[in-house]
Amino acid sequence: MRKIYSLQNTKIKNLIRINKKNYANEFIVEGVKEFKMAIKGNFFPRKIFICENIFHNYNMIKTYYSITFFISLMIFKKLAYRENSGGIIALFREKKIKNQLRYEKIINNSLILILDGIEKPGNIGSMLRIADAAGIHFVILCNMKTHIYNPNVIRCSLGSIFTRKIFIEKMESVFFWLKKNEVKIVSTGFYNHKNAKNLYKTQLKYSKLAIVFGSENKGISDFWLERSKKIITIPMFGKVDSLNVSHAMTIIIYEIIRQKNY
Amino acid sequence: MRKIYSLQNTKIKNLIRINKKNYANEFIVEGVKEFKMAIKGNFFPRKIFICENIFHNYNMIKTYYSITFFISLMIFKKLAYRENSGGIIALFREKKIKNQLRYEKIINNSLILILDGIEKPGNIGSMLRIADAAGIHFVILCNMKTHIYNPNVIRCSLGSIFTRKIFIEKMESVFFWLKKNEVKIVSTGFYNHKNAKNLYKTQLKYSKLAIVFGSENKGISDFWLERSKKIITIPMFGKVDSLNVSHAMTIIIYEIIRQKNY
Repeated sequence: MRKIYSLQNTKIKNLIRINKKNYANEFIVEGVKEFKMAIKGNFFPRKIFICENIFHNYNMIKTYYSITFFISLMIFKKLAYRENSGGIIALFREKKIKNQLRYEKIINNSLILILDGIEKPGNIGSMLRIADAAGIHFVILCNMKTHIYNPNVIRCSLGSIFTRKIFIEKMESVFFWLKKNEVKIVSTGFYNHKNAKNLYKTQLKYSKLAIVFGSENKGISDFWLERSKKIITIPMFGKVDSLNVSHAMTIIIYEIIRQKNY
Repeated sequence: MRKIYSLQNTKIKNLIRINKKNYANEFIVEGVKEFKMAIKGNFFPRKIFICENIFHNYNMIKTYYSITFFISLMIFKKLAYRENSGGIIALFREKKIKNQLRYEKIINNSLILILDGIEKPGNIGSMLRIADAAGIHFVILCNMKTHIYNPNVIRCSLGSIFTRKIFIEKMESVFFWLKKNEVKIVSTGFYNHKNAKNLYKTQLKYSKLAIVFGSENKGISDFWLERSKKIITIPMFGKVDSLNVSHAMTIIIYEIIRQKNY
């Protein structure tokens, strides 16, 4: 393993560049847990940078020694977003996840999650983590406002972004695919949306169901509202505006699970 | 209104000191939304610092001109945690929220939330926001690992920390109070806890119900497990460890609401 102790090193400069904006179909994974998940999800590391002062999971990277570099604590601190990520930063190759949906078949009893225009990387990450916990079959992202491999998406998803099938698609092609496969669409409206029905008074036991969540600020777009079989809302009792979109998602997804299974 | 343009000013130095560690029963509120919520919750501002270059809600502070100071953009940036908080930082007086529980009566159909040893300020804040949305009657915090008025608690609660009744108590006194008022205790266990029952197979329609959530890492303590009528868990289907504690909370609280009302 080679050692890099200068911020002027081209590999480090390249890493900083990718950190700022994704280039060349590569993205950065920080942290031991996240690295393991990426490997588990069959992503390929291109370069691995470890900080001797912190890192101690050498077993984890033993097959990658030829692409591993030691970096100094000073460089690591410059690169790392977090303090407790375990001293590893790696560069991975992206997988093709755009426009792949049309090749997918939907079987009965499928739950499909559509995230349309979610703005905060942290929310996307949390929603992927919940999708994982709830065993959702397809996660489809439309109108992306952030890069899918943004460090905060990866972190908040606890790495489940690497082990789940995720698709980035245009709304129109998602709708075409849903229609072809006879999937029912349910949208989640604001509590004051005129056609929205209380979640707990709504039957959601469809064999093939797609549930749509809209952006944090603007809510769900007319495109989905017009094409939805039902619009649902969560009963609210408080003084604060509303629930965070990821918390709204847990409530709705688990109510669907309850209706389907219990 | 006076102007302060030096970081060496004693008021600014004091603010920085409080920012780092809470002193003298004062805490800092940053942001227009949060300030409004604190006022709504009958908290009293002691000093208000506004940055002319950013701030424009003068109507909001017109009754407080005597305690308002202008600060420069440079000082504001040094003090502010966030970029888009609207140019206001204020110092408020704390309210007494410790050991106040014994004076409270519990009426029928009450839902009580007990957060025991939650570590991350962001999680506490999110859980307070959810408690607000779900209309929970009492929020009780035990074994606090962070200051209740930590900026991240305030921010993630969307200021609902100011409008809800919150109590900080010792576990023993909470238990004594619950017992005296004949409240049933339900704990939320890890999915692999031996006595934990599936949430959706558990009857939770108690007239007076306290639901306990434990720390992110260690889960719920034996103290509560031993004193619980039931231990419940959420069905999980994924590859990632578990749900975040605030997401677990939404699922459980809304299932209780569903069982009680629908």
